[in-house]
Amino acid sequence: MTTGDADPRHEDEPHPTNTLDDTVHQRVRLGILTIAREADRVDFGFLKTQLAVTDGNLSRHVKVLEDSGLVSVEKGYAGRRPRTWVSLTPEGGRALERELRALRELVRRLDNGPARPGV
Amino acid sequence: MTTGDADPRHEDEPHPTNTLDDTVHQRVRLGILTIAREADRVDFGFLKTQLAVTDGNLSRHVKVLEDSGLVSVEKGYAGRRPRTWVSLTPEGGRALERELRALRELVRRLDNGPARPGV
Repeated sequence: MTTGDADPRHEDEPHPTNTLDDTVHQRVRLGILTIAREADRVDFGFLKTQLAVTDGNLSRHVKVLEDSGLVSVEKGYAGRRPRTWVSLTPEGGRALERELRALRELVRRLDNGPARPGV
Repeated sequence: MTTGDADPRHEDEPHPTNTLDDTVHQRVRLGILTIAREADRVDFGFLKTQLAVTDGNLSRHVKVLEDSGLVSVEKGYAGRRPRTWVSLTPEGGRALERELRALRELVRRLDNGPARPGV
């Protein structure tokens, strides 16, 4: 099988990666959104540990998500220690659902599709 | 549930997004790899249509994958028309498998995990 024949069953459907949104799909941001979905709000330090990223890297990605309205950021104190909490917004929840739908479809195709011999 | 409590069942495991490789995970590149996996080799023009990207954008991403050894690129003719074909390398197949494993785990967690109320 070669060239344009790549799995003709799917040729007319848009490819599932076309519906992925770069804002949500990026590795660290996808991590932030999925962890934030598991709680009402999630501590910045917890995100940092879970995602194994630096302060600067995490801040930058949280900012992108905040600017896109996908998370909200709250500052406060836990005792005397300043804390930052990140929460998924309803829009963020919907965006993550769309991403999940595309990922499920991608995984489904790859699980069912013909694998290359020898791979 | 708040802060570091985000789904304590998973607190000690590395988060599935940590094992994603940016070279493979990027939206267009993930599309190239998954389509290339469905055939021995896939035509550049077919990839362009399927992924709804420009020539320049596609070339750039194919180059990244080629430089990483995940695809090989072959130039030739179909009749008189110059053609470019992209094939998954064995290393590309393994990289895609690792990505798939992380995506499956991510989807599984999100499907089983507690969703935020109202989302």
